[in-house]
Amino acid sequence: MSRAEKLLYKIKNPTDLKKLELVELVQVCKELREFIIDEVCENPGHLGANLGVVELTVALHYVFDTPNDKLIWDVGHQAYGHKILTERREKFATNRKYKGISGFPRIKESEYDSFGSGHSSTSISAALGMAVAMDLENKENHVVAVIGDGALTGGEAYEGLNNAGASNADILVILNDNNISIDQSVGALKEYLLDITTSRTYNRFRDRMWKFLGKVRKHGPDARTFAAQLEKGMKTTILDKSNIFEGLNFRYFGPIDGHDILHLVGVLEAMKTIPGPKLLHCITVKGKGFKAAEKDKVTFHAPGKFDKQTGDIKTKKSNNQPDTYQEVFGKTLLSLAKKNSKIVAITPAMPTGSALTGMMEEMPERVFDVGIAEQHAVTFSAGLATQGIIPYCCIYSSFFQRAMDQAIHDVAIQKLHVVFCLDRAGLVGQDGATHHGFFDMAFLRAVPNIIVAAPMDGLELRQMLYTAQLSKINSPFAIRYPRSVNPIKEWEQPYEEIEIGKARKIGDGDDIAILSIGSTGNDVKKALGRLVGVVAAEHWDMRFVSPIDEEVLHAVFKKFKKIVTVEDGILKGGFGSAVIEFMSDNNYSSEVVRLGIKDYFVEHGTREELIEECGFDSYGIEKAILGMLDK
Amino acid sequence: MSRAEKLLYKIKNPTDLKKLELVELVQVCKELREFIIDEVCENPGHLGANLGVVELTVALHYVFDTPNDKLIWDVGHQAYGHKILTERREKFATNRKYKGISGFPRIKESEYDSFGSGHSSTSISAALGMAVAMDLENKENHVVAVIGDGALTGGEAYEGLNNAGASNADILVILNDNNISIDQSVGALKEYLLDITTSRTYNRFRDRMWKFLGKVRKHGPDARTFAAQLEKGMKTTILDKSNIFEGLNFRYFGPIDGHDILHLVGVLEAMKTIPGPKLLHCITVKGKGFKAAEKDKVTFHAPGKFDKQTGDIKTKKSNNQPDTYQEVFGKTLLSLAKKNSKIVAITPAMPTGSALTGMMEEMPERVFDVGIAEQHAVTFSAGLATQGIIPYCCIYSSFFQRAMDQAIHDVAIQKLHVVFCLDRAGLVGQDGATHHGFFDMAFLRAVPNIIVAAPMDGLELRQMLYTAQLSKINSPFAIRYPRSVNPIKEWEQPYEEIEIGKARKIGDGDDIAILSIGSTGNDVKKALGRLVGVVAAEHWDMRFVSPIDEEVLHAVFKKFKKIVTVEDGILKGGFGSAVIEFMSDNNYSSEVVRLGIKDYFVEHGTREELIEECGFDSYGIEKAILGMLDK
Repeated sequence: MSRAEKLLYKIKNPTDLKKLELVELVQVCKELREFIIDEVCENPGHLGANLGVVELTVALHYVFDTPNDKLIWDVGHQAYGHKILTERREKFATNRKYKGISGFPRIKESEYDSFGSGHSSTSISAALGMAVAMDLENKENHVVAVIGDGALTGGEAYEGLNNAGASNADILVILNDNNISIDQSVGALKEYLLDITTSRTYNRFRDRMWKFLGKVRKHGPDARTFAAQLEKGMKTTILDKSNIFEGLNFRYFGPIDGHDILHLVGVLEAMKTIPGPKLLHCITVKGKGFKAAEKDKVTFHAPGKFDKQTGDIKTKKSNNQPDTYQEVFGKTLLSLAKKNSKIVAITPAMPTGSALTGMMEEMPERVFDVGIAEQHAVTFSAGLATQGIIPYCCIYSSFFQRAMDQAIHDVAIQKLHVVFCLDRAGLVGQDGATHHGFFDMAFLRAVPNIIVAAPMDGLELRQMLYTAQLSKINSPFAIRYPRSVNPIKEWEQPYEEIEIGKARKIGDGDDIAILSIGSTGNDVKKALGRLVGVVAAEHWDMRFVSPIDEEVLHAVFKKFKKIVTVEDGILKGGFGSAVIEFMSDNNYSSEVVRLGIKDYFVEHGTREELIEECGFDSYGIEKAILGMLDK
Repeated sequence: MSRAEKLLYKIKNPTDLKKLELVELVQVCKELREFIIDEVCENPGHLGANLGVVELTVALHYVFDTPNDKLIWDVGHQAYGHKILTERREKFATNRKYKGISGFPRIKESEYDSFGSGHSSTSISAALGMAVAMDLENKENHVVAVIGDGALTGGEAYEGLNNAGASNADILVILNDNNISIDQSVGALKEYLLDITTSRTYNRFRDRMWKFLGKVRKHGPDARTFAAQLEKGMKTTILDKSNIFEGLNFRYFGPIDGHDILHLVGVLEAMKTIPGPKLLHCITVKGKGFKAAEKDKVTFHAPGKFDKQTGDIKTKKSNNQPDTYQEVFGKTLLSLAKKNSKIVAITPAMPTGSALTGMMEEMPERVFDVGIAEQHAVTFSAGLATQGIIPYCCIYSSFFQRAMDQAIHDVAIQKLHVVFCLDRAGLVGQDGATHHGFFDMAFLRAVPNIIVAAPMDGLELRQMLYTAQLSKINSPFAIRYPRSVNPIKEWEQPYEEIEIGKARKIGDGDDIAILSIGSTGNDVKKALGRLVGVVAAEHWDMRFVSPIDEEVLHAVFKKFKKIVTVEDGILKGGFGSAVIEFMSDNNYSSEVVRLGIKDYFVEHGTREELIEECGFDSYGIEKAILGMLDK
């Protein structure tokens, strides 16, 4: 079929979609699904989640009056279809690219994106805010939140349900239940939803009751009266209060097939007429319509480039490339866990992303996937630590923001030996503003009792992970590292303790001092490599943001009048700020140029593009050094 | 009855308690209740919650083998009885006093305090961590978490339930249901618990069903078979899955009377034999046994000194004392809300503490108490702001830590006009380490797009609150202020806009510059008052941490070689750090002494004692100034 013949190309925005006949939506769904596969196989992004909500997306825009009605996508990585149907089909080739459209809804990108997302479990709270605002302003538009069963395990979703249920707000929550978040869904709720879905209890019991009552009625007037009473009791009790959502005062509908577009449209039309908080339980298949994605849901969550005919993943690692920090982390932790029986790992729904799958296979009883529940992950770790277990609590840096209070209240104040492994620290790349992990150093160094470290390479990560489990460590220990290839191929060297708070000298020189933290040290090395013969710099890999190496800093400030600090984090209050706090407190007065992330939210692009934009790639560092010495 | 005759004085720790006959526990409860009232009426602390759990406390320590069995008190302000029974009766007169015992459980205070608390909703996660650790180590001790219905509205509690329910961990959650947290409990869950309790649905339906089945059995063999089937269905379905806890795979028991000590002991003994996750629903009365406290639960949550005969509150405000910052806040917000119909207020369960009760009475539809749910509070505010409403989101500074991610992800990235009113910022006093709000400035100034302000006095707070709602403001606006009396009696002056990012000069002089933020400026004034004729200081009330007044800073650094900064917050990354970042970035090199909170968790005491300990009371400031000028 040519482009001109396709229905999809007739749809600029939902106004065009609404002009179609109901039955034509089947074709629209087919074309939208193909479009997504065609795009994502070439320009990597999220696949499975987007294929799973094709029918939902089409039905929602067909039935509701967007953008006047508000549509909120929880997490937001499933909004490709939504973007394509709302004036961004032509731009979709720029998805997740530098200066292109975002892979997540963004208010500033389109009026159809009524609420931005990226992190999980916020949609019900946001929807309630919008619905209440409409009540206050006497507007009558609808508000719809689409949330996955995975996101529903996050505590904020429950807070939202609890509050929405107590209100009379007209909100519709669509539970997109595919029984998988990014990895397998986890928790009692998962079983519960499956129970509802498979009729194992609720539906079966309800059916049996109705049948039974039919028979009882035959047993004379007395039985009939009781049957009538019982039926009334069932209606008000079982039907109203028999599930969690009804317990929280939501009217529950479903479960229905989330891929039956015609039925979906009908049900959603009906929903529009029902006042108050209500939940529609839709059963969907992650990766729907693309066989390989349906089969391997974890890999096809965000598969990279792939062959759309065969489903083969194209982006494979070359043999010459060293391991990523993630691979180093996963292999090292497994090896340490084999040596130290006290070690366990905790992950909030990211076992694959955090490279814990190896450990999970070899010692499943010592890896705890707690679902999307960062707060619980941290307090659970604290509970483990009180009993002498050494929990490696592995959380992406930006999601760790959600557990800051638990890190302070449950771990730091109690000075418990919890190891925080903050993956995807610094600029993360294509996931953009919501996913960058650039506050961790500024936040954590402000908190007493926590050791905060960042390795320059895989070997240093390995030794930090080793050091963190030594019995001499009696405080929380945070290690943050980027989503990136580590520079060292031969990282698997014998374990060696790293002295806490001690920096490592990388290069010698008398012109200028460069103090780097974490992986930025590698760019410093590159910059200095190009400057050999021009500038002689003393380069320190500082290793620890807290406690910072005061001995080295004294020596550096005594020797150098010009100092550059480099960090993959926010400058305000960050690592460089620690350096100048030291300078000021000790009455030194060197010229310090701090490279890092300035006071704005960096958008998406490759990690390299963004580091360049922020000016701490090797060329930016070179420029800063030359700029200082020119003066 | 003399002290020697009392059973309570025979109990040093639970070993002694266990030697008593069961019936003697009634007397122990009576004496423990009297002891708490006697102590708290003279030495203020939490009353209502502690009276409500007297029987629970006695029963738990009688039945369980503490400290080997682990007892976790959620929030922790209800642990007085626990402390008194576990070797701290004699020290109890020092409760909440400087260098005395803490008003909350603290691991380092006693081996009986198995997990520290202060913030809400952490107990189930911590309990699960302990139970899993015991499994890993093949220990067989019990783990019990006691959580109130208020704390159960916090998302982390649900995350904990969801994870514990999916495990086989032997944990007992005791739901201490008094239908009130600090103010009235809020949300759908509250109604739900009340439903269960009052048998309106579940119990009534269950009873009716059993009766009905009894009658059906008489109708011949056919009916008997159906009745048997139905009974089985009911047992596996209604009883197992009919409530939220059972939906999350907890075995649910109750509701039972939490004041019937003899029954409680029996039930808890039975609980010990039941494996897996289980929940015991206890109905208690907050303030039980003290009439005035039972009647006015909000006032007697933490009443200050009171007459134990009449229940009269003794600590009344003198007529000469100016209003607290809280009073200024409450009155001003109400007045602004009357002028600007877009203003609403949001509080997570602290309407009284945040002084919102006046506004709640006058315009109930514009104050939203969302229960203990800080994350929801912030995202809900963001949702409101997308629709042009101006939410004043009022959260205690230390609880705001729990919503840092939402502040970043939902508010700051989207640059929404939400006003954060951070009450109890800085050192809070007797509530101690968990409640101090000293990270807010360091954290928030690191986040792009947020205006961060702190008023020196009530008038400035008033004008900041006024400024924050002006239509020209197009970003988040945080205002942080202490739990304290404001220095100005006549704060109710005409509204005047404060220019964003502009400091205010308080005093002139050429010897030294003092830059203060927030209420610390008043201590600077006192110190400088004493130094008149000795030191001439230029004193700036900086007002804004972000954006900081660069014009003033340029002038100050050009003029002064000696500068003192003062803040009621953590020094690492805080306000003073912002000042020296500016100094470094602009190549100034004055000597800067930063006063504030050093790198440790400050304990409890009066706010004055703690500020003195931290060295930024007026004498500490004076000393710092003289110390610099002596050099």
